[in-house]
Amino acid sequence: MRIALIGYGSVGKAFARLLESQRKRFPFRITAIQTRKYTAYDPKGLPIDPEWGPPASVPEFLDKAQPEVVIEITSLNPVDGEPAISHIRAAFARGLPVITANKGPIAHAYASLRAEAAAHHILFRFESTVMDGSPVFNLVRNNLPGVTIHGISGVLNSTTKVVLAEMAQGRSLADGVRLAQEMGIAEADPAYDIDGWDSAAKTAALANVLMDANVTPQMVERTGIGAITPEEIQAAAAAGFVITLVSRAKREADGSLTLTTRPERLPEDDLLANVDGTSNVLLLHTDLMGTQGIVSVTPGVEQTAYGLFADLVDIAQQL
Amino acid sequence: MRIALIGYGSVGKAFARLLESQRKRFPFRITAIQTRKYTAYDPKGLPIDPEWGPPASVPEFLDKAQPEVVIEITSLNPVDGEPAISHIRAAFARGLPVITANKGPIAHAYASLRAEAAAHHILFRFESTVMDGSPVFNLVRNNLPGVTIHGISGVLNSTTKVVLAEMAQGRSLADGVRLAQEMGIAEADPAYDIDGWDSAAKTAALANVLMDANVTPQMVERTGIGAITPEEIQAAAAAGFVITLVSRAKREADGSLTLTTRPERLPEDDLLANVDGTSNVLLLHTDLMGTQGIVSVTPGVEQTAYGLFADLVDIAQQL
Repeated sequence: MRIALIGYGSVGKAFARLLESQRKRFPFRITAIQTRKYTAYDPKGLPIDPEWGPPASVPEFLDKAQPEVVIEITSLNPVDGEPAISHIRAAFARGLPVITANKGPIAHAYASLRAEAAAHHILFRFESTVMDGSPVFNLVRNNLPGVTIHGISGVLNSTTKVVLAEMAQGRSLADGVRLAQEMGIAEADPAYDIDGWDSAAKTAALANVLMDANVTPQMVERTGIGAITPEEIQAAAAAGFVITLVSRAKREADGSLTLTTRPERLPEDDLLANVDGTSNVLLLHTDLMGTQGIVSVTPGVEQTAYGLFADLVDIAQQL
Repeated sequence: MRIALIGYGSVGKAFARLLESQRKRFPFRITAIQTRKYTAYDPKGLPIDPEWGPPASVPEFLDKAQPEVVIEITSLNPVDGEPAISHIRAAFARGLPVITANKGPIAHAYASLRAEAAAHHILFRFESTVMDGSPVFNLVRNNLPGVTIHGISGVLNSTTKVVLAEMAQGRSLADGVRLAQEMGIAEADPAYDIDGWDSAAKTAALANVLMDANVTPQMVERTGIGAITPEEIQAAAAAGFVITLVSRAKREADGSLTLTTRPERLPEDDLLANVDGTSNVLLLHTDLMGTQGIVSVTPGVEQTAYGLFADLVDIAQQL
């Protein structure tokens, strides 16, 4: 199966390594890569460090690459999800299935992308957009038939967890951000994490896909952690509470959706307060299956790459 | 689709209620029920409280019932998994797919049942055997392609969690067992929980299915919680530790499997120590996907019934 990658950063390279390691069982080949500055093509399959040629627009690239699947992994534009949304539409326009690890399109334009994919009978997968590749969307689709999700709660941003843990030790927010950057987990602009935009985008993506919402991150009631002091965290800890950035989506009795991302003061034995380090936790509140929890333990770029791979296997089985 | 139930206790009734509530979308009908004392048949579908007729052996029952799927939900025999294993074989002999919520057959005879089902091209599902219906086996099969599981750790028994929490408050083991019985979660013989047999059976079932082991609960190195004192738990708590009954399976460097179920003294911020109440947690340690966590939050009989339903939808899609 011929794969075209749009974007080739750390996730793309981890994905290329993963495909190499699984080649015997899964005959997938990356035959084209496009970045902002370069392109590379080889219908027999590209090496992890390919020889780069001149740049091309995404439509030019796709027309030359002639892939069977397109993987969109450009870096996130948190404001409106572009240009990733246009990249996906360019693939759809050519009848090509798309996998993305980019939460922008799912947080900003899922309802219309879903409709476009359905109208053209094209598969569209995005497992790695919210929980670093842990089964969330595929879990609900494959394993929870008949279930209605009426609420979601989660601690979904690793950077704020690291920062708040540092502040609990008496260090400053800036110290915490520095540590998260050293660990390689903070977004390019850490304000995107600290101000709650990353968590709000994940909340919107989850609500769009799992609760049939049609919202954007801007529609999530959002408070970041910028105003929290080390003293506040330490006073909470002394009283048996943990302050953490929690994302929630809830279907109200009147059918409306309430979406929030904000620091919450949780009892220290609350599951949401209790998943340490960079690990994330997501709880799905359902009608038939009670509450179902998913924990992504110390996720890294390899997990995100694996989520792309799982989506690829899913698409390959259906083509 | 015509369904025959073997066994009709609280899970069976919850399952019957669930099917009724989902009838519009999922046209499944329970057309025959066998218990130790009675049988009931109606090809048009049985009500939740059917009129009972005389008893029959399982082969007689299946021949009369002519179902399309058999659901085995008799109560557990922890020693050898019988008669459930024979019930499943009677269904296989008739070419019928089987779903079970009974961990005995998976813990005692999975390798041979899997081989028999494969030889006859029969589907065999058992999602509700270990985590009360939470996606575990179906999650690995559907959502983790190419992944090898090299270790499993979990806190899988609700009764011992309740008992140890009571003892942490200074009450006795007997007090804790009484509370678990009042909550309706203890096994018929609570020694089965306290001595670690339930957890050992779940460990064997997980290892058999997910790590291709061919073991029985008796082959799990097993220590129960009977020797633990409230003082010991309180001393651990004062030092920042929690004592809990942990199940582990680990593939060693030489390819052998180490299987244990025993009380462990875990740091209080360990994820395994931190899922409260009757909730269970399972961590899958993998090659490609790091560690993946599944939390079954306050599971009950409705969740177990839902696991049967999810298996049934899976089978219906493939028949």
